[in-house]
Amino acid sequence: MTEAGPPAEFNLIARHFRPLAGPGSLDLLDDGAVLAPPPGRELVFTADAMVAGVHFLPDDPADTVGAKLLRVNLSDLAAMGATPLAYLMTVSAPRDTGDAWFAAFAGGLARDQARFGITLLGGDTTATPGPMTLSLTAIGHITPGAALRRTGAMAGDEIWVTGTVGDGALGLLALQGKVADVGGYLAGRYRLPQPRLGLALHGMVSACMDVSDGLVQDVGHLCRAAGLGAVVEAALVPRSPAALAAGEAWLATCLTGGDDYELVMAVPPGRAGPLAAAAGNCAVTRIGRFEAGSQVRVLDASGAAVHFDRPGWSHF
Amino acid sequence: MTEAGPPAEFNLIARHFRPLAGPGSLDLLDDGAVLAPPPGRELVFTADAMVAGVHFLPDDPADTVGAKLLRVNLSDLAAMGATPLAYLMTVSAPRDTGDAWFAAFAGGLARDQARFGITLLGGDTTATPGPMTLSLTAIGHITPGAALRRTGAMAGDEIWVTGTVGDGALGLLALQGKVADVGGYLAGRYRLPQPRLGLALHGMVSACMDVSDGLVQDVGHLCRAAGLGAVVEAALVPRSPAALAAGEAWLATCLTGGDDYELVMAVPPGRAGPLAAAAGNCAVTRIGRFEAGSQVRVLDASGAAVHFDRPGWSHF
Repeated sequence: MTEAGPPAEFNLIARHFRPLAGPGSLDLLDDGAVLAPPPGRELVFTADAMVAGVHFLPDDPADTVGAKLLRVNLSDLAAMGATPLAYLMTVSAPRDTGDAWFAAFAGGLARDQARFGITLLGGDTTATPGPMTLSLTAIGHITPGAALRRTGAMAGDEIWVTGTVGDGALGLLALQGKVADVGGYLAGRYRLPQPRLGLALHGMVSACMDVSDGLVQDVGHLCRAAGLGAVVEAALVPRSPAALAAGEAWLATCLTGGDDYELVMAVPPGRAGPLAAAAGNCAVTRIGRFEAGSQVRVLDASGAAVHFDRPGWSHF
Repeated sequence: MTEAGPPAEFNLIARHFRPLAGPGSLDLLDDGAVLAPPPGRELVFTADAMVAGVHFLPDDPADTVGAKLLRVNLSDLAAMGATPLAYLMTVSAPRDTGDAWFAAFAGGLARDQARFGITLLGGDTTATPGPMTLSLTAIGHITPGAALRRTGAMAGDEIWVTGTVGDGALGLLALQGKVADVGGYLAGRYRLPQPRLGLALHGMVSACMDVSDGLVQDVGHLCRAAGLGAVVEAALVPRSPAALAAGEAWLATCLTGGDDYELVMAVPPGRAGPLAAAAGNCAVTRIGRFEAGSQVRVLDASGAAVHFDRPGWSHF
């Protein structure tokens, strides 16, 4: 005779993840979720994984780990111009992960669910003998045909970015004690990127993506997608006061370090005003232009080429 | 000056995963995928993770690892009665993972994509200092309101299962040298579960789920969802010739080991014929009944209760 009581794994899900579950999730009690797609809309899907020691620090607060997992995916939805709808998540956790970690992790997700208008649809919780490994699939919706794309930049288009670049990479270095970070601004930007959702960019930009692997490398992606080259003027790249305070020695880190989760866009000339209006409260800055060719040239204030050991992050 | 050539990570994606990409994937070149949902259908979502050393053996052939990752999720779609549509996948791989592993992994996915009618929509590839960790989100579609649910079993409903139970758990033991496995049938069932897609179960069953964590535990899930107990007659539980050859000493393993990916269903009495017809080429077997109460009682051929150390698998 076996008591029909749930095993520990299901108690864990019930305690921490069921409160996050929204419409269609069937309270996480079924084999899958059932969702009626919003009528007349296309769906946008993206999935990103995060591994402790690779994408976040093992001692990062669990609430920011949960929020960052959601936000890096929301940043991809933002790069497509989509509106958040729901997400699925798999959590592979070391067996000694305490209940308090799960509670804080779910708390970070709960706050951001309310903030960004998205709910949990389903997922899986497993053990791992390795580091905490998280995977999230975000679903958004969009007017048919309105998705922003990486393709489409034209020679002569300007390169614009949202927000400031380099804070995330410097924030990681700050948490490792390598960069001063008075007030913890940089660490905050590393732990809690700000997805640039809700900007009215359709019809305004000819190409868009989010900067996650390093600005120079990601501009290179836009170039390859369009068969173009680009010039980035390093002096124009917007850096936060905290990043500037770190000093010019960290310029290359800002331009290639990644973890920015800002949008980089190709914008036809003459749209500075309308673009700023479309971006609303989010600052946008012109940093260069696309041109014929196949290279990303980064120039300093004197027009001299800046060289980098690597243009951005690669896992392999 | 920086060559706009892709880093190694993107070459890896281009070589192995782009050939898997289907409609809406934008060739995996964008921040997200864009999908027009099938008109007049609901969508079904499920996500499962697999970790080397937990869900599969580190030396399992990579093509079966890819196929199993897809199939365990397809089994969840089958349990909901959904038709496969597309999937997203994140791969967190040790840095020393060879190109041949990725090629075989993708090859296993390619074969199963053709077999089950599903294509890759998007995902992420990252490094990990831990074991290979895979996560897959599967998307299916279904007639609105037709999703099979875990809730809904009634006292007096019969318990039916598809296929045979216990092969997967015995297959793992066989690969560990603990169980004889002439011809490798059991190992094959561990490595390549058979998702029971395409059965016409809507209106035929009052509840359904897939058996992944162990038959007794999973019957317990159906019981809790309905506020019922159940009797399972061990002698009725269908076992393969290979499982029977392993001997009666392994009965408990078969009933609680998990990794079956068969469907367990609550079926009103008197539907044996129609159910068999609905299941088509897939064998279905009656193994017990739901009753008032809150316990899963497993009885042997003499009617005596069979006891287990644990009813099924829990990660925590």
